[in-house]
Amino acid sequence: MNEKSLDSRILDDGETDRQLVEGRNAVLEAFRSGKTVDRLYVLDGCKDGPVQTIVREARKHDTIISFVSRERLDQLSQTGRHQGVIAQTAAYEYSTVEDILERARQKGEAPFLILLDGIEDPHNLGAIIRTANQAGAHGVIIPKRRAVGLTAVVARTSAGALNYTPVAKVTNLTAAIQRLKKEGIWFVCADMDGELMYRQNLTGPIGLVVGSEGEGVSKLVRENCDMTAAIPMKGDIDSLNASVAAGILAYEIVRQRMSAG
Amino acid sequence: MNEKSLDSRILDDGETDRQLVEGRNAVLEAFRSGKTVDRLYVLDGCKDGPVQTIVREARKHDTIISFVSRERLDQLSQTGRHQGVIAQTAAYEYSTVEDILERARQKGEAPFLILLDGIEDPHNLGAIIRTANQAGAHGVIIPKRRAVGLTAVVARTSAGALNYTPVAKVTNLTAAIQRLKKEGIWFVCADMDGELMYRQNLTGPIGLVVGSEGEGVSKLVRENCDMTAAIPMKGDIDSLNASVAAGILAYEIVRQRMSAG
Repeated sequence: MNEKSLDSRILDDGETDRQLVEGRNAVLEAFRSGKTVDRLYVLDGCKDGPVQTIVREARKHDTIISFVSRERLDQLSQTGRHQGVIAQTAAYEYSTVEDILERARQKGEAPFLILLDGIEDPHNLGAIIRTANQAGAHGVIIPKRRAVGLTAVVARTSAGALNYTPVAKVTNLTAAIQRLKKEGIWFVCADMDGELMYRQNLTGPIGLVVGSEGEGVSKLVRENCDMTAAIPMKGDIDSLNASVAAGILAYEIVRQRMSAG
Repeated sequence: MNEKSLDSRILDDGETDRQLVEGRNAVLEAFRSGKTVDRLYVLDGCKDGPVQTIVREARKHDTIISFVSRERLDQLSQTGRHQGVIAQTAAYEYSTVEDILERARQKGEAPFLILLDGIEDPHNLGAIIRTANQAGAHGVIIPKRRAVGLTAVVARTSAGALNYTPVAKVTNLTAAIQRLKKEGIWFVCADMDGELMYRQNLTGPIGLVVGSEGEGVSKLVRENCDMTAAIPMKGDIDSLNASVAAGILAYEIVRQRMSAG
């Protein structure tokens, strides 16, 4: 495939193309995590330290490097924030729920899953995958419908976490919860009107279910959870940002696990 | 001022104009918090429930309403996400550190401040103001330089919190910290290499200092803090999203205050 047809393909795919990783952190993490980078686009003449580090990393991996103009990068970019580097990688592959459980088993840890019901903002999904990684969750489960998938914006916002933390996509969140309950996992549902999170025991094998900002967790999913958890709200407005709320809840689980351990 | 010159002024101001509030939540909150809305732009023919609620609220306040086309709204919009409503309000006014302390005194609470060192992403600033509101912080302090101010994106991302939670801008963050220490406030610095946050006593009058994602809190500011607080990081990547980290730390303060109270 020659240069021109390769580029046309990328541009034609537009929003549906999920094979570009953009921004310095995300590109560097893609290399370091052993991800296959098919081609690296770098801003021609850029002598920036972080960019030079990426170029060295690319040479180490025998990656094809194209030095291109800013206009070219802007044209390729799906996020508008490439910071001078775009990597064309193998598409992010979804994991499976089984793989996520296996990951917990291999680490000898009680499973810790984060399930997202209807998160549509890619920045929120990316930030939550990043939080899942840092909180030591074994994976993230998202539904196939009414939710954003693993786009370039999600990859960039995850700051590389998408390379380490598996994300599984399921047809039916309720069915997945019912199946996982049989494996001994307890489900806690983020719910503003629920029980204060500090009062719940969140130390065992757990699935944290977080909904979208506008709608929260859907009724059917909530009814299938074992317990609710509310973040104390002392303010004048309705809610927290979805990724901030997920972070606070995930770290309440971390805190309880650390003090129990 | 006639219609045309008013609109020209708004468009000419471009990015520096801070008088537009966009999106349904933010516009409704602007009305409900008693903010002066000079003019409301509404998508012509929009029969949506939330938009009708906003129109009723505007009529109650005798606000001038302009029903305009989608093209017109898109043209006016600074955020690209107006959701059919744009309010032109009096500019967000910065508060003062004194006002923030007075707010704590009036509530009879130990002061709880959030100080941001070099947050440049308006989405992060908005989300942190939203978190400050919900965590019961009395105000947010930002530096004049190397930081984003109260733009339309910040207002929208704060989901209305900017109407309730005062934000003060100071010339020098270190000088502000030194002055506030004399008033008995203790400062805790977010620091990945610091003491685990659960081990610190965060129950008294407190200022939480959070830095930018890339740089963290600057050396001079950190040296002027009384203690550090680290969020446990169990992952493979460098850090958390700045607004998620601020949320986790702010809610550790909430948790300790609740269990001490």
